[in-house]
Amino acid sequence: MKIRPISGFPEWLPEQRIVEQKLLDEIRRNFELFGFRPVQTRVVEPLDRLTNNGSTDKEIYIVRRLHADPDEADDKLGLHFDLTVPFARYTLENRGQLVFPFKRYQIQKVWRGERPQEGRYREFYQADIDVIGQDRLPLCFDAEIPLLIHAVTSALPLPPVRVHVGHRKVLEGYYRGLGIDDITPVLRTVDKLAKIGPEAVAQVLVEEQGLDAQRAQRCLALSELRGGLEVIDAVRKLGVEHALLEEGLGELQEVMRAAAELPAGTVVADLGIARGFDYYTGTVYEAFLQGLESIGAVCSGGRYDNLADAGDNAKFPGVGVSLGVTRLLGPLFRREVIAPTRLTPTCVLVVLDKEDSRARSQAVASRLRARGIPTEVFHAAQKYGKQIKYADKLGIPFVWFPGGDDGTGEVRDIRSGEQTPAHADAWEPPSEDRWPQVRGRG
Amino acid sequence: MKIRPISGFPEWLPEQRIVEQKLLDEIRRNFELFGFRPVQTRVVEPLDRLTNNGSTDKEIYIVRRLHADPDEADDKLGLHFDLTVPFARYTLENRGQLVFPFKRYQIQKVWRGERPQEGRYREFYQADIDVIGQDRLPLCFDAEIPLLIHAVTSALPLPPVRVHVGHRKVLEGYYRGLGIDDITPVLRTVDKLAKIGPEAVAQVLVEEQGLDAQRAQRCLALSELRGGLEVIDAVRKLGVEHALLEEGLGELQEVMRAAAELPAGTVVADLGIARGFDYYTGTVYEAFLQGLESIGAVCSGGRYDNLADAGDNAKFPGVGVSLGVTRLLGPLFRREVIAPTRLTPTCVLVVLDKEDSRARSQAVASRLRARGIPTEVFHAAQKYGKQIKYADKLGIPFVWFPGGDDGTGEVRDIRSGEQTPAHADAWEPPSEDRWPQVRGRG
Repeated sequence: MKIRPISGFPEWLPEQRIVEQKLLDEIRRNFELFGFRPVQTRVVEPLDRLTNNGSTDKEIYIVRRLHADPDEADDKLGLHFDLTVPFARYTLENRGQLVFPFKRYQIQKVWRGERPQEGRYREFYQADIDVIGQDRLPLCFDAEIPLLIHAVTSALPLPPVRVHVGHRKVLEGYYRGLGIDDITPVLRTVDKLAKIGPEAVAQVLVEEQGLDAQRAQRCLALSELRGGLEVIDAVRKLGVEHALLEEGLGELQEVMRAAAELPAGTVVADLGIARGFDYYTGTVYEAFLQGLESIGAVCSGGRYDNLADAGDNAKFPGVGVSLGVTRLLGPLFRREVIAPTRLTPTCVLVVLDKEDSRARSQAVASRLRARGIPTEVFHAAQKYGKQIKYADKLGIPFVWFPGGDDGTGEVRDIRSGEQTPAHADAWEPPSEDRWPQVRGRG
Repeated sequence: MKIRPISGFPEWLPEQRIVEQKLLDEIRRNFELFGFRPVQTRVVEPLDRLTNNGSTDKEIYIVRRLHADPDEADDKLGLHFDLTVPFARYTLENRGQLVFPFKRYQIQKVWRGERPQEGRYREFYQADIDVIGQDRLPLCFDAEIPLLIHAVTSALPLPPVRVHVGHRKVLEGYYRGLGIDDITPVLRTVDKLAKIGPEAVAQVLVEEQGLDAQRAQRCLALSELRGGLEVIDAVRKLGVEHALLEEGLGELQEVMRAAAELPAGTVVADLGIARGFDYYTGTVYEAFLQGLESIGAVCSGGRYDNLADAGDNAKFPGVGVSLGVTRLLGPLFRREVIAPTRLTPTCVLVVLDKEDSRARSQAVASRLRARGIPTEVFHAAQKYGKQIKYADKLGIPFVWFPGGDDGTGEVRDIRSGEQTPAHADAWEPPSEDRWPQVRGRG
């Protein structure tokens, strides 16, 4: 049978998986440092739940048993295309057993049947966090999210992140203050600013949305504001007044103030963001790697009024972001800007000098592993040169030559050639050599 | 829309996911301590690859785009039902870039469309290791596997494991030495020993396979042998001679000798195992938790001659085992024999005494997190009693009362009530409290 890759379903070499795993571990570690609780959902949802939640159903993969019994009453199932739909269902299903505010993280693969193209995948990892309240959710959770995005990305060998924070209430309040009633088409038009430029946006606002030229210009003036806390005052100087605008500015200010503990420039207020406002109702986030903006937002999300309709009067307001792990990793691999220090977890290769002494080599390995040092015994009593070559190919940094049966021997750093006496119950590798590390290149 | 579980697709509460994640982490850590390299494959394979590999195709879930274009030349795809089929394909696909012997581990979900029943899942985690050679693979890798199974299971709060080791060459050589030519039906019959008992096996061997009563008894005599290294001699005392039998006994002996470093009774030679011999060609393994044998084998596998047909003359002999993570966890959850020490990663809850001092509480949290201590700030300036109640519900062990803006304050262990002065740049929780632990109950 011919073997070929399936377009859109990426697979990595073991050394790339080491990088991916390290990324996933650091994401998880930081999510947990902020007190988020882990959730995994099944990969399938009833098809009607997937198609009911505002997605274009073109993207969905359906799943069924190859030989389903004709009389089988199985629900129609599909693979989840994000982690929000299953999480909403999970929260309703388990609401009686969850502690609210419910801070949860979820790191899983999702599937979308889109036509694959550069940087688009059909199977990819997402790492989501959300905080869900019952009936209400304090704004402090909105303020925490940029801190978390910064913590996650600075734990990795990546360029510094810049988190753009926008706010639906600021835009909507401002437009209403200008006397614009039909907000949605204006938001959609302003959202095209980066793509079609300010003149074209103004033209559409005037010709299609019926704004006069002056109001169109004032919409654009808001969208161009970008910066630190001073942006709040800059909005006020535009001279538009509306209660919703003031509410939004107050909320944006709280999020920006909490960001003051981060390095300057990490978080910027950006009133050009008009994305996702069919879903998000307050704060919105878009995060980019500085200098790698071309790979797109690595993280985005926002505040929403209700995660899911519980069928009673209960509301579940929430705020969250999604980090596109595979969408981040793919370009980093292609650009070769990130690499592991070796191709295997193994830190020490114990040589085998003759078949009879296998027990001795094995005992050294067991002693090292018992102290958390990843160790392999070479599999055949070949010439040392051949054994060292195997270590070299995989980037295993240390080769151990057993001496007595008591765990003594000599250990060679094959990078420097330095060889020293050592005991398997006491020798420690430099801490950066114990497990493979992930490093930025250049 | 009505919400109900989908039979066979288990989901856990966050505190159960903490347990599952800890289990997966320990499995991975031990696989890596033995030098296995990580691989993940896409979840879909071409359908013809899935149905070509000896599985009953009834079990397969097929996957297709909901609105696939009629002229789309997409391959028919299915979800993988194990990790062996995708790994075989992956190894062939990447053989030019892999270093052999290729020690790989793979921890992923798999899907089988079986009718769900007690202890059977349609979606479940498997954790596989395999070592693949080019053309040949030394026996030392067979000998390493029981050490690895012991290392993985003893890192967890589980009863001790017992690894049963059988050997196809011993059984086949013994039968051939008895003059039996058609081996397969005899192996299949002996495999039913535990289910139907020795009399019924003897009866089938005589009536259906045409053995005389004496040879049937000698087959049974082999199958009853179980124990340590002495089993090798016990086989020889049965007085059957065959070159393949001797070869098998030599191999079994090498595996059993390597197990001598483990606690007595951890590894037993068991010539009653006749399972999987349509696939396995040498050593076979079945591992059980002592006292929990009723949940079935938690780990099984063996040696095979060729992982995959490369289309040229290349052979890829291998040896490996698969650990059924979900099949293990499900019964442990149902029996409530395993539980986490708390319901959240959070170690410290920082209280908020008034809205104005949020920055102070937040600064304490940042200092603690920077030193790797999972910390949350309570979200509202409610009465301390309410804030402590939240910590109590989640099992968060420590509550922090901020003092000055310099990180000073007091920390209370809410289990003992003991409260002491502390500084957020210096205070350390007891190491077992830093992250949630997983403990056996009773």
